[in-house]
Amino acid sequence: MTDDDFQTSAAKSANTRLACPQDFISDAPFEFELGGSVPSLTLRYETHGTLNADRSNAILVCHALSGDHHVAGQHTPADRKPGWWDAFVGPGCPLDTERFFIIGVNCVGGCQGSTGPLSPNPATGLPYGADFPQLTMRDMVRAQRLLVRGLGIERLHAVIGGSMGGMQGLVWAVDFPQDTGRVVALACAANQNARAIAFNEIGRVAIMSDPAWRGGHYALGAGPKAGLALARMLGHVTYLSEAGMGRRFGRRAQEGACPANVVVERGPFHAEFAVESYLNYQGLTFTERFDANSYLAITKAADRFDLAAGRSLEAVFAPVRARVCLIGFSSDLLYPPADNHDVLAALLRAGKNATYTELETDAGHDAFLLPTAELFQAIRNGIE
Amino acid sequence: MTDDDFQTSAAKSANTRLACPQDFISDAPFEFELGGSVPSLTLRYETHGTLNADRSNAILVCHALSGDHHVAGQHTPADRKPGWWDAFVGPGCPLDTERFFIIGVNCVGGCQGSTGPLSPNPATGLPYGADFPQLTMRDMVRAQRLLVRGLGIERLHAVIGGSMGGMQGLVWAVDFPQDTGRVVALACAANQNARAIAFNEIGRVAIMSDPAWRGGHYALGAGPKAGLALARMLGHVTYLSEAGMGRRFGRRAQEGACPANVVVERGPFHAEFAVESYLNYQGLTFTERFDANSYLAITKAADRFDLAAGRSLEAVFAPVRARVCLIGFSSDLLYPPADNHDVLAALLRAGKNATYTELETDAGHDAFLLPTAELFQAIRNGIE
Repeated sequence: MTDDDFQTSAAKSANTRLACPQDFISDAPFEFELGGSVPSLTLRYETHGTLNADRSNAILVCHALSGDHHVAGQHTPADRKPGWWDAFVGPGCPLDTERFFIIGVNCVGGCQGSTGPLSPNPATGLPYGADFPQLTMRDMVRAQRLLVRGLGIERLHAVIGGSMGGMQGLVWAVDFPQDTGRVVALACAANQNARAIAFNEIGRVAIMSDPAWRGGHYALGAGPKAGLALARMLGHVTYLSEAGMGRRFGRRAQEGACPANVVVERGPFHAEFAVESYLNYQGLTFTERFDANSYLAITKAADRFDLAAGRSLEAVFAPVRARVCLIGFSSDLLYPPADNHDVLAALLRAGKNATYTELETDAGHDAFLLPTAELFQAIRNGIE
Repeated sequence: MTDDDFQTSAAKSANTRLACPQDFISDAPFEFELGGSVPSLTLRYETHGTLNADRSNAILVCHALSGDHHVAGQHTPADRKPGWWDAFVGPGCPLDTERFFIIGVNCVGGCQGSTGPLSPNPATGLPYGADFPQLTMRDMVRAQRLLVRGLGIERLHAVIGGSMGGMQGLVWAVDFPQDTGRVVALACAANQNARAIAFNEIGRVAIMSDPAWRGGHYALGAGPKAGLALARMLGHVTYLSEAGMGRRFGRRAQEGACPANVVVERGPFHAEFAVESYLNYQGLTFTERFDANSYLAITKAADRFDLAAGRSLEAVFAPVRARVCLIGFSSDLLYPPADNHDVLAALLRAGKNATYTELETDAGHDAFLLPTAELFQAIRNGIE
């Protein structure tokens, strides 16, 4: 079976379930690591499978920058797309809902129902916008833990996630060793490297230089559409690889009506190639589902991520009790696989149970989203 | 001697000469490959060294996207910076001005004195702006050839250039085999790959979605500054490598006054890292010397570049008489070294005298701009 066949069959079998988003509300003020607070915290989440009697079978799924709590299934039968990890979650899937209780949660600072820049600022009654407290990865993890405890779970069987979600898995292992049984961290690193910061910064400047950003205070639906589309276009390229883009698009010409014209009036500079049209379309549709201030807040949190923060990684890993399974992808542009070697070495030197599995692929950073037999087995091994 | 020492000593010895830009004017209409024409053509150029009696010692230097005719020396003693390849051109340098007559020329479509979007459109009396004819790499080469013939040169000893300049070298070899003695093509490929198109497209959308672009018709000095700065910021990242950026910037914090705030008002989303500040500065200063419509025109020409264009490269190379020296750089993100293998193989199958030299470096695509002993010798070998 080829990877493509595998993906098709995996998608067919899994995407016919309904998922029901719920809101967890913590009425206490939530203090942010870099200062500021919100008077209460709402976290939108969804679950799959059944929590067992001793509450020992929960797996927390942490999403990447543009993801959310909606990991699998459909919210309504009319939904065009299922959750972002649909093929990975279900009966018999790597995150087997017959064995495990799967929790997906939108991060604090997000825009899919959790407290974030779209939430009302009690000082003004208007959305926080750019006045939402500055965010870190640790804020997201502390918020997730409130939810986990709220669900009556003392210890997670596992925390799993890709990209920013993988970083959060590492934070769980370090900050809450008692609570974290296993970590499966895909396509990530122990800090944000200079180039990843640079790509995020370009996306931010694109948003902030769009006049519709208005200093971070725009009306709902009137946000910086072109700027956010640009940020997404760039993000999207960094999630792919040169070889993968060559295979998928190459120099194929754009034929027929070009949705690229929708993002911006281009005069005579048409989108001549399929890859241009595709990117414009991706950028455009992203603006329909994502908030620009959330994009700023979350990319800032990712850029600030530095697990060692001036200490040695080995020392930082000392408290870890979790078994840690790192999974990297050969063509990942954002977090080159070599970065995992340092994380693995530090975990081993700290005497921890850790492995690193590197998968050969031309799917780039996005490989963690694509079902393949190899990745499924690597994840099974990690949460076993 | 380390590479850094080498660069310092190379720079010191070479950058104290004055260069004098000149204008070549072809009074005949210049027809563009994709349609349209200009009534006459101006090409700004500069030369170094002396053309010998039989006019056989000329080397044409073709610049990259953001380069120009000013390859070496200073235009006035007060110039802050010398030409872009200063260390490479001079007595005893790889482009030895005691032996060779070096010609640098701003490409048609450029904005440093050659006919381009800033030139007056005879139909309106105003700059062409976005109405400048759509451009190709072959247009640039045909224009260069008018200059070369205008200087009384029938056959170039060599054509040399990096990135887009290397592509032009390959076009010279294919389109004008009698005129082209040698080609040294650095950091390039035989076509523009999908990812390189994608990066360029994002830069273009950044420019075109800046309201100051005004459909490509803006007043001089009132162009899309933020959009062009964004395009340059992204371009700049693609010219570097992850390892190189890690070595140069890493996660170093930005200290003191932050020029990043100049490009765009950022509210609370400060540029916290040195790499962010650096990129903002690079973007900003670029807008002082480059025209946004030229950026659009030239990136389009680069994206359209496809030497094979549906045929086999081997067949396309059949007429070549030049000795071809390809030079690639291990960490080049835009034109991965592997792309050169295909070009070399096609040249060899076509029975041509061709070599490929791959240099190990973390300097990325920009490596072709940095003097090292290895690169100097590789170039010497190529033009010998």
